[in-house]
Parts: sequence; structure tokens; C-alpha cells
Amino acid sequence: MASSQSGTPTVIDYLLDRLDAVGVRHLFGLPGDYNLAVLDRVLAHRSVRWVGMASELGASYAADAYGRTRGFGALLTTFGVGEVSAINGVAGAYAERVPLLHIAVGPTQDTERAGSLVHHTMADGDFDRFARAHRQVVCADAVLRADSAVTEIDRVLATCLRESRPGYLRVPRDVALAPAPPGRPSALPEPWRADNDSLAAFRAAARDRLATAETVAVLADFLVDRFRARDELARLLAAGAFPHAVLPSGKTVVDESAPGFLGCYGGAMSRAPVRAAIDGADLLIRAGVLLTDLTTGKFTHGFDPATGIDVGPTTAKVDGTAFPDVPLSDALTVLTDLVMGHPPVQPPHARPEPRKPPVLEQPAAGPPAESMEADAAPGRRLRALTQRHLWQAVGAAVRPGHTVVAEDGTSLFGIVDHRFPRGARFIGQLIWASIGYGLPALLGVQLADPSRRGLLLVGDGGAQLTVQELGTIGRHGLTPVIILVNNDGYTIERATHGPQAVYNDIARWRWSRIPAALGVPRPLVLSARTPASLDRALSRAMATTDRLVLIQAYTGREDVPQTFRRLEANRPDRAKWVP
Amino acid sequence: MASSQSGTPTVIDYLLDRLDAVGVRHLFGLPGDYNLAVLDRVLAHRSVRWVGMASELGASYAADAYGRTRGFGALLTTFGVGEVSAINGVAGAYAERVPLLHIAVGPTQDTERAGSLVHHTMADGDFDRFARAHRQVVCADAVLRADSAVTEIDRVLATCLRESRPGYLRVPRDVALAPAPPGRPSALPEPWRADNDSLAAFRAAARDRLATAETVAVLADFLVDRFRARDELARLLAAGAFPHAVLPSGKTVVDESAPGFLGCYGGAMSRAPVRAAIDGADLLIRAGVLLTDLTTGKFTHGFDPATGIDVGPTTAKVDGTAFPDVPLSDALTVLTDLVMGHPPVQPPHARPEPRKPPVLEQPAAGPPAESMEADAAPGRRLRALTQRHLWQAVGAAVRPGHTVVAEDGTSLFGIVDHRFPRGARFIGQLIWASIGYGLPALLGVQLADPSRRGLLLVGDGGAQLTVQELGTIGRHGLTPVIILVNNDGYTIERATHGPQAVYNDIARWRWSRIPAALGVPRPLVLSARTPASLDRALSRAMATTDRLVLIQAYTGREDVPQTFRRLEANRPDRAKWVP
Repeated sequence: MASSQSGTPTVIDYLLDRLDAVGVRHLFGLPGDYNLAVLDRVLAHRSVRWVGMASELGASYAADAYGRTRGFGALLTTFGVGEVSAINGVAGAYAERVPLLHIAVGPTQDTERAGSLVHHTMADGDFDRFARAHRQVVCADAVLRADSAVTEIDRVLATCLRESRPGYLRVPRDVALAPAPPGRPSALPEPWRADNDSLAAFRAAARDRLATAETVAVLADFLVDRFRARDELARLLAAGAFPHAVLPSGKTVVDESAPGFLGCYGGAMSRAPVRAAIDGADLLIRAGVLLTDLTTGKFTHGFDPATGIDVGPTTAKVDGTAFPDVPLSDALTVLTDLVMGHPPVQPPHARPEPRKPPVLEQPAAGPPAESMEADAAPGRRLRALTQRHLWQAVGAAVRPGHTVVAEDGTSLFGIVDHRFPRGARFIGQLIWASIGYGLPALLGVQLADPSRRGLLLVGDGGAQLTVQELGTIGRHGLTPVIILVNNDGYTIERATHGPQAVYNDIARWRWSRIPAALGVPRPLVLSARTPASLDRALSRAMATTDRLVLIQAYTGREDVPQTFRRLEANRPDRAKWVP
Repeated sequence: MASSQSGTPTVIDYLLDRLDAVGVRHLFGLPGDYNLAVLDRVLAHRSVRWVGMASELGASYAADAYGRTRGFGALLTTFGVGEVSAINGVAGAYAERVPLLHIAVGPTQDTERAGSLVHHTMADGDFDRFARAHRQVVCADAVLRADSAVTEIDRVLATCLRESRPGYLRVPRDVALAPAPPGRPSALPEPWRADNDSLAAFRAAARDRLATAETVAVLADFLVDRFRARDELARLLAAGAFPHAVLPSGKTVVDESAPGFLGCYGGAMSRAPVRAAIDGADLLIRAGVLLTDLTTGKFTHGFDPATGIDVGPTTAKVDGTAFPDVPLSDALTVLTDLVMGHPPVQPPHARPEPRKPPVLEQPAAGPPAESMEADAAPGRRLRALTQRHLWQAVGAAVRPGHTVVAEDGTSLFGIVDHRFPRGARFIGQLIWASIGYGLPALLGVQLADPSRRGLLLVGDGGAQLTVQELGTIGRHGLTPVIILVNNDGYTIERATHGPQAVYNDIARWRWSRIPAALGVPRPLVLSARTPASLDRALSRAMATTDRLVLIQAYTGREDVPQTFRRLEANRPDRAKWVP
């Protein structure tokens, strides 16, 4: 036991050591009377820090974003009332393949055996209801008992790593505090191992396919990140000099400043050159791709998913033929080998170098000329801020050391259209798409890597769901930038249905007062109603690194990003999001 | 179909009519792209109003409190992300036996059948995960299909009414908007019917038991309210003139100004005379009682639950012999008949009339003398506000038209010690005991009966969990009184374990600024750090009925109510809450 806590190492100490070993340095959660004595052990742990949150939902979202950044996240709640409030975030981690552990500390085994009618239960002696509910949203779960605790902890953690998904442990308080078996724990197994025959067969099939391809393009997605194949993908892109794009959910899995980078691909949402390059490639290599409604402009992708080379988490496919047990990183390495040995024919017009990327804006290029002009024109009414300008300007303000968290809605579909500088990272929930994720996720990424600055892009509707965690961000003295799109309601829903309907309205908050009210120390709160004032606010936010900055960006109630406009223009019959 | 909506009546119209019929006039929830078109039908309904909330957790708590007040509550969420965030409140309704319907509107049946990888799913084609999770926390559930929708809706609602518990419906959007079968719906069945033989046997056994009892006392609990037997209980108490008490969870199920009312009974938490009368009765009649840890001072009740007369929701017991299919109201009527025919012997010392109730404070008696003296004494340091004074003063301020919502923690265990005037109502979660319940519950009770004024008693820790719903309260122009115990953290947890531990600390908010920041119009915000200033604040709050009042009551970090002190003094070995 590597732990340096006081006293005999306990089951919870073992669990914390295991979390430490997979990269967890912060444990998010809330106290509750069943878990208090267990939290004493957390406070005593040499490297895992307790992060007290204002809500369990916030804890689950923060742990998810933390897991995306560090490879594993964890939260600890109290039995019943605490744990069920965290189900949303745990379910999101399942959908979005984030390894994460939810630890729910419950009543003692004596209490369970007696069937006592204790609080935080249904008063019916059934202590397993919430574990059964969690089983619907995790890849592995267990109710710990002292004699098998070590085995079960390792089984659940190993499964989480292998599947890149969340797990759940219910831990009776007495089990958590029982002595752990002595001895040094064995290493967790390697999550993914290639089958050599399958790998060889994939190599042969891919070689044949590459040999006949006239134009090759690459489309990458978030599973490259989750299955730790970023470096292997970068090597393939460098070796082949292929034009490549990312799905919105895969933003920043590649270096977006590279010359071959086309931009973000999302079916009919895409800029025309991106769409043409991806849909028109003779061979499309898809790396870690999952085609869902929100990532494909409601399934308006123009390529045939049954053809081409598709390398998934553990299965590779060539024109629909599957090669199982071929991990993503191994498959990409095979492709790189093949490309370096036998680069495919690329007709001159398809070679990405040295042509300029077919996107309009450049990183850090400053505000676009049109808005400068608008604000400068004397005697004219100031032009209102549009989503179009907003996302261009925000995209241009992103720096290599930034992690951008974008809430589902206009924030996310606005920013994915803009390329980030090399080194910048992006986090968004494109599958689970739960509004309210943003604020706690900002906390999670900021704690996961304090060397980076978090930028949150969030709507006023979504921010209401988890606003209390702004106080938690302040309590930890964190200094991110929050760009709040103040457009008086659920604009993404207005774009879908009921633009004027009362159900898309929200309570009108005075956002400028909220950071200070929630205890954020010396917040810098700025407002932007015009392109020029937004640009000034962004400049000031970037220059102000010693405190939290909140920019209220006022846009029209029904104004939407360019991605939505393109989707509507290109496929008006399928332009609605609602399946 | 009684509905007057425009167009052909749909399945959702039928469902809304059914909810209307069981007393639902407000449907709590949030929009989401799967439910928008369905919300159009809600807006069009003649009597059910849509209440847009800031969070699904808040919607579930509000619906619960609404259900306690009007007999049925309902919430509507969007599939996946929305519905799972509401599980806590639905589970609480199960534990606390509140009839409530959770409607989750999801993707169309075509989308389900195709197994489309759409947002708010796990992107695995399984659309039933969240229904299965809900099955752990409801008494009935269904996934609606157009041909069986009417039958299934009625089955789920009837079960909710019979069990007094929540139900869950997943409704694909196309099913919700499909035409409902024509014709007038039949009445829902009577939820509980007595078995005449069993009732007769109970009567005989109860008659014998009453005949031999020398002293009789009655202990009442919340199931009297849920199983609609308040009037029958009142008649029994009037007929027998029995000394009687309520468990904390049963507060206000009886007229607390009646002369026979002893006060609140909670085992070792109780005031001594209450405890003596209940534990010492020769025959204890228990009406709608559930003995749980928090209601009994951690099972320190002094009577034997296997003896006496126990009338539960549908089963009555005499000295442990069970008589099934005897509804609570019928059982109480039988007992009243017996008492009126053959009143049991009550020795003079046990007769409650005309002795004074053995509780210290009187309703509306004004501030206790000791605090007046303390504040009046010149040259002395002002005495700090204590929980003891706080709850005495709040209890004295309660009026017949008030509904008091007390959050679990010191608020709840402080106020239960104080009797309310006749007509005042109390709402608290003693079994599920989820902090965060209070603010949304306040909204729920205020909408459920606008003729009453809501008083919320809540701690600063609990209020952080659902603070966004303060904005919803403001948006509806509601004018309740909120008494916020500002004691710098989770004091109930400090009393349990780790009084100085950092995990019991919370972010320090500036509560005085929060109502206005969240859009509450013209809030009256008061602070009280001394007994005198609290008394002034309460007077002003009661006199100010045209706007929301927030009183910040500052008490010591480790100060606790008298109920806790008595528990510790009486049973120090079992004084901890943690099972």
C-alpha cells in the first residue's frame, strides 16, 4: 500500500490509491451523514484532494470534464439522495465514453442486514434500488464487501479503463473503513491488446484499399482522444499529408493549425469546402468516429459509412469488413506504416499543401473588418452583436493554453466552426448534450490542469441549471473566462420549435450581480451589445488573468450560428433537430 | 373528452385531462427538443398550466410538494438528460408516499425502431435505459403506445392513487400527439375498499383492547394525510378526548391548538411530558405511523410497536394481529364508534382536559421574555441569536394561513418542537431527507394554494443545492417568506461528525444580493444576528405580504435545536444520526 495516511490502511485508502494511480488528484462530491467518516480518510490522503461542490449534479459534470482532461474522473456522494442526483453526469460519461468512478457511501452492513427503516431509503429495507438504477448508466458496478473489496475495485476500474466508461461502487461505511488486505496492489491490466492475426489481416486489406485510392481524406472524432490515439493519428496525418477534418465532437483531437486541416465537418452544417473534401474523397479514413444526429447535421453526411477505412476503439473495418481486436492506436500505426511505405496517389488538386485552409477566419487574427467598420461609422446606429460575429471573435481569441468548454446549444455549434491554435483544447457534450454541463465542467478542467485557462461558452438558459457551481469556482480562487450568451431563453429550442412560445422563456437574471453574490472574489464582469464592445471585452478578459471574468454577450433571441443557417439552407427538409 | 383544446384531442390531451381530474392544475418541467411540440398542447389546455423551472431537480421537488398539498403532482421533462435529473425528487415521493406522475417525452417510435444514434441517448440504440432506472423509484410505469395509451395512463394513475406513490410514463413524441380514442373516460376506481369481514374482526379485537385499557394515547403520522383520513382522525380525537402527539413527519395532521395535543413525539428527542404520555400509555393508538430513524430519535421510542392498536394505510393491527384490507379512514371510524359507545377508562391524571399543553411556547405569543430582557439590558453585549430562540420565535410567528416548509436539518428539527395554530400546515421530508428540497417545495405549495402564504425554513447549505428556483419563485411573482439559517455550512453534518472538517464548509455567498440577482422583484431582505433583530424581522415579514421576504438568521456554526440536545442528553450512546 503506497498510501501515507495515518493509521491502518482501509478499503477507502486502497480505493483512493487506485484512483491516484489512474490519474485522479481531485475527488468531487458532497458530504452526507453516511459518508462523513469516510471523508476524513479522503482529507488524510497524501495526493487525492476533496472538492466540495454545491450540488451532486455539479459534482458529476465536474468529474466528467476532469476525466476528459486527465484520463479518469471520480466523485463521491452519500447514499440515496446524493447518488441519484448525480445520475445525469454519470450517464453522460457513459454516452461520451469518459472513464469515471462514482462512489456512493451508504449505511453499514448491519443496517442493511437488519433492514432498518433509515433515512435516504424508501423505508422498505431495500438498499439496492439505487445501485440497480445506476446499473443502467455504467459499464461496471459493485456493492463492496470487505473480503472482496480489492478484487471488486480492481475489476470495476479495469472495466472503466477498457470500456472508457463510468463505473459505480456502493460502499457501506463500515466496509470503507475496514482494513484493506496488506501488500502492494498489482498493476491494472492493459486495457486493449491487439490480436496479431487480426492486425495482419487488417494491414493486408488496408494496403489493398490504399493502393487503389486516388484521393484520401481523414475524418477524426472524439474516440481518438478517449482511446489515447492522438499521437498515432498525428503521425498518420503527417505521413500522408492528407486533408482532414474533425466532427464537432472531435474538435481539437488534431492540430487545427496544420496546413492539411480543413475545419469541422458536420454534414450539411459544414462549410462548403470541408463538405466537398470529405464527401468527395475516393477513400475516407475515419478515426474514432461515431456518427450521431448532432455531429452529422442530422445525418446529412454525404459519404457512405459502409465503405472506406474505419478504425474504431477496438475494431477496424475496411469497406465494411470488420477486423476485431485491433485497437485504434495500433490500427493508426499500421496505416502510417503503409502510407510511409506506399503513399497513395494524390492528384495535385487534392493535395492540401500548400493551399490555404478553406476557412474564413484565422486564429488570433483579431476582429473581422466588417464589425470594425460598423462600429467606426459615425452617425450610424451601432450594429447589434450577432452570433456570427460573436463566435468568430471568440474563436480568434482562443490561445494555445486555453481549454474551451462549450455548452450544447448555440455556444457549441457556434464555436465548432472556428479553428483553434495548436495546443488549445475543446470540450463539449455532443451526444448526451445536457445543458447545465458547462459551469461544473469548467471547474473540472480548471482543477485538472491549472496550467491552462478555462474558457466557458454558455447560454443563459443552460447556466441557470448549475449556477451554484460558479460559487465553487470562486471558492477555489479559479480565474477562468465565462462568455455568457444572454439571449433571453433557450434559443436552441426556439430554433427547433416554438420561437415565441413561453416554454422557451426563462427567468430574467441580473447576471452581472451573480458572481459577487455567489462569493467569487473580485470578479471582472463585462457586457457586450455590439461587435466593438465584444472585441474590447475579449481583449480585456485575455489580459486579466488574476481573476474570474464574466462577459455577458447579448445576442438576438432567435439569432443562431452559421452552422445552423447552413444546415437549414442545405437541407431544409431535415433542418430540424428533433428525431 | 372534456378538453376544450383546439384540434383533435390527442393522447397528451387525454393525459392532461386525467391529471386535471385528480387535482393537477400546474405541470412543472423544462423544455427540451423532444417535448416542445407536446408543450404546445400543454399551453393550449384549458386548466393545466405550464410552470417552466430552472432545473429538473427543482421540478421534481416542486411537484412533490404540490402533490402533498393538492393530492397529486406532475412534472414533464425531456427524454434522457431531463428525466434522469428528476429522479431524486421522484424517489423522494416514493419514500414519502406522494402521488405524482413523471412524464418523460422522448424520440418518436420510428427513431426508436431504427435504433438511431440520437442525442440524449447512450448512442447504442437502447431507448429503455432511463425507464428501467425509473422503475427503481416508482410504483407503476409504462412506455406509451397509441393503441393502449388510455388503458396504460389509467392503470398508472390508479396505481399511484392506490399506493400514494409516484408513477412514470415515457411518451414518444408521436404517441403524445396521436389522436386519443373518442368518448368520455370512465372514472378511476376507488383506491381503497374495505373487506367487511376483516373490518368486523378488527372492530371486535379493538373493542376488547379498548375495554381493558386504563390510559389511552394517540400517536399520529403523515400517512393519515396521504391516505386522506384527517377528518376521521379528528373525530376520533374529539370523541375520546385522548392525549395525542404527532411524529415529526406527521406535524399538522392534527389541530395543534386542541387541548389534548401534547406536542411532537420523537423518542428521546421529545419534551419530557410528551415522551412520558406516549411511552407510558396503557394503550397507544397509532394512526398512519411509520417508525423511521429520523422520526423516532434514532429508534429511541419507548413503546413496543408490537402492541397497541396500529392503523396503517390498508392494514389495521391489534396487539400484532393484522387485519388486512382495512383502510385507514375506515379503521379510525370504527375506533370512533367504539369510543363513543364505550369510552375507555381514563384516570383523572391522564385526562388531557383541562390541563395546559406541556409545551413551553404558545402560538403567536410574541418573543420570549428572556430575549427581550437580553436585548434591553443596557451596557451588555448583545446576545447572539441561538437556534433555541430562532425556532421559538418562528413557531410563534406562524399563522393559520401559513404553510411551513422545513428543510431537513436544523430547520426541520428546530421547528417540529413548536406547535402551530389550527389551520397552519407543515411540509418536511423526514424519510428521504434530501437537502435542496425546500426552495422548489416552497414554489410548489405556493402555486398549489395561492390563498396560503408559504414560509420556508432552510439552511444555507441546503439552499445552495436548488437556489435557481428562487428565480422561478420571483418569475411567478410569488410572495413567500424565506428564513435562511446562515451558519456557514452543513451544521446538521457538523453535529454528526467532523464539526470543524472542511467537508462541512460551503462557499460563502452574499445571500442578501441573491434574490435581486435572480430577478425577484422588489425583494425585502432582512438580517438577524440577535434575538431582538430576529423578532423585528419576523414582524416585518409578516406585515409585508406584497413581496418576497428573505430573512438571514445568523446562528453559531455548531449551534443546534433543543431536539438534538435532548436526544444527546437522554441517549448519549445513540445520539448520532448515522446508521
